[in-house]
Amino acid sequence: MSWSIGFDDISDLARGAAVLGTGGGGDPYIGALLARQAITEHGPVTAVPLDELDDDALVITVGMLGAPTVMVEKLPTLESIIAPVRAMDAHLGRPATHVACAEIGGVNSTIPIAAAAALGLPLLDADGMGRAFPELQMVLPTLSGISASPLAFADEKGNVGVVQTIDNSWTERIVRVSAVEMGCSVMICGFAMSGAQARESLVRDSLQRSLHLGAGIAQARLDKTDPVTRAVDILAGRELFAGKVVDVERATTTGFARGTATLTGADGARLTLRFQNEHLIASSGGDEVLATTPDLIIVLEHDTGEPVTTEGLRYGQRVRVIAAPSDPRWHSAAGLAMVGPGYFGYDVPARRFDGQIFDGQISEVSA
Amino acid sequence: MSWSIGFDDISDLARGAAVLGTGGGGDPYIGALLARQAITEHGPVTAVPLDELDDDALVITVGMLGAPTVMVEKLPTLESIIAPVRAMDAHLGRPATHVACAEIGGVNSTIPIAAAAALGLPLLDADGMGRAFPELQMVLPTLSGISASPLAFADEKGNVGVVQTIDNSWTERIVRVSAVEMGCSVMICGFAMSGAQARESLVRDSLQRSLHLGAGIAQARLDKTDPVTRAVDILAGRELFAGKVVDVERATTTGFARGTATLTGADGARLTLRFQNEHLIASSGGDEVLATTPDLIIVLEHDTGEPVTTEGLRYGQRVRVIAAPSDPRWHSAAGLAMVGPGYFGYDVPARRFDGQIFDGQISEVSA
Repeated sequence: MSWSIGFDDISDLARGAAVLGTGGGGDPYIGALLARQAITEHGPVTAVPLDELDDDALVITVGMLGAPTVMVEKLPTLESIIAPVRAMDAHLGRPATHVACAEIGGVNSTIPIAAAAALGLPLLDADGMGRAFPELQMVLPTLSGISASPLAFADEKGNVGVVQTIDNSWTERIVRVSAVEMGCSVMICGFAMSGAQARESLVRDSLQRSLHLGAGIAQARLDKTDPVTRAVDILAGRELFAGKVVDVERATTTGFARGTATLTGADGARLTLRFQNEHLIASSGGDEVLATTPDLIIVLEHDTGEPVTTEGLRYGQRVRVIAAPSDPRWHSAAGLAMVGPGYFGYDVPARRFDGQIFDGQISEVSA
Repeated sequence: MSWSIGFDDISDLARGAAVLGTGGGGDPYIGALLARQAITEHGPVTAVPLDELDDDALVITVGMLGAPTVMVEKLPTLESIIAPVRAMDAHLGRPATHVACAEIGGVNSTIPIAAAAALGLPLLDADGMGRAFPELQMVLPTLSGISASPLAFADEKGNVGVVQTIDNSWTERIVRVSAVEMGCSVMICGFAMSGAQARESLVRDSLQRSLHLGAGIAQARLDKTDPVTRAVDILAGRELFAGKVVDVERATTTGFARGTATLTGADGARLTLRFQNEHLIASSGGDEVLATTPDLIIVLEHDTGEPVTTEGLRYGQRVRVIAAPSDPRWHSAAGLAMVGPGYFGYDVPARRFDGQIFDGQISEVSA
């Protein structure tokens, strides 16, 4: 059944999406501001479950592409969020009927809410990953053979582009270098697909899940129970580590926020996190890999359970690190080839949230 | 009066255009191959003088953007030349009526011939510079306020993009980084303008001039007279230097072929040429600047008068360097700000082909 996303839902939804964003997707506070502003100006947004989508609907994804480190200083405007949608409408020759999130992670969950409000369109209760990943082609629709292009991109200055590429990796390559030149972040609109394709390729109920997760963490705080344990329960994950951030190396290169964070625990144990916008690898002091992409590696504030983004990691922060399963379609051989540790240059086998090694054949099941 | 560009015209036309290309614009041999292939397949091209153009014609420029050093190894296909035109037609919602050259220089004079042949469209006997310059916005239409965008670009793999930017420098910036990512050269189509705008902003009779120049050099060889003197006469320029290439430093960086060439004369005199795709500065051994952009600095083979491109400069080559006046609109304050030595990072005053310093007010005349 359709439901309505109102002003008061944004806070919980943004918190939950930031948890699923695994450190990427930008500051949820900024994302929440954008969505609230759009709802104030244009009214609440109708969220539509995948099951209620007509086969011939025209679904587009809307979001931001770039380094989240930059977004903190360069707030997108509602106008720039809508600009690539207008360019897509013109390119396709007909307007989209539904907006969707390409990823459920930080601002890329709340920017589509802002877009849907401003455009007066319903928003699918779904997303293309079930988490966040750093590159544009890293979505389940790519695994289903859906083209990212035509894909439109726009900056806050008024520059707009539309690319049509031979595969989704080329969309990423061309739009990424353009984004770097345009100030390290652009708003994008692409992955035009039918309702039938959306039902097959997207992750269902992502917004409900974010809302449930964000509200659960807040409720645990009110109940004086442990918000991190609550998050672990909801995600069906496990806690990997609790400790203090003692070192963060970070660089914004080729349009990404890349780096390493080192944590120490009370007993002298160490944990190392490697990230590219999102957390990719969690390993112990003895370099034993505990969990890797595509499963979720999430950093939460120690006591409050508030999600910490990779650009928000600070020396001395007390945090807890949890791991949780990703959508099972990422566990397929094709999924692991696209977003496993090897793609990001790490010569380690992919490990599930529970420490088991993926065999790449575990599950060709659909979600 | 309209005239026809046939298979047999290409050799002279490409030679003349390579002279006007001031070292840039790529190997005229490759450009000639492309044009000849298209004329063989599709028949001769009608060249239309600016005076015969209807006010409401829809003119587009077609060409290559990238480092000419790369083009030697990556030949464009006829299909890739036409791909951005098709994207422009779709974007504008109506097909262009005339093709024009953005610059008269090397392949960017012959690629439009190939495009016109393949598209079955007439080609304007005109161009946007009266020479070649390394960046996309460096055309007289920019000085006349004509937008480069919408501008379409395509590679030989099948990737296509269209940008709409807030000014022509942003078109250059976004398309340049995309071109670098796409293999250091792309085919482009842009600067859509009316017939009235084309008449006001383009340089007239560029193809005739190239043909006359290229044929003049060839005829001088047949007549056993000096081809370089013939070229100097046709261009109303002067010979700066004769000597041997003793050093060439060259790098392909940020999508351009940049470098310095040093020449020594029989009497021990030296000449230094600084280039970015095109020759920008000619100075003597004592660092006295002899001539600069926007006037033309041209390198010809010592005896044959064949143009030498910047990427064709080789140790031991015997060459002669000539300078010639550019279109007087480049001598305006706005023209010098756009393409004078200062724009390219050289802290020297702009010098005319005859060594005089431009005062930036010399001539606001129209060509």
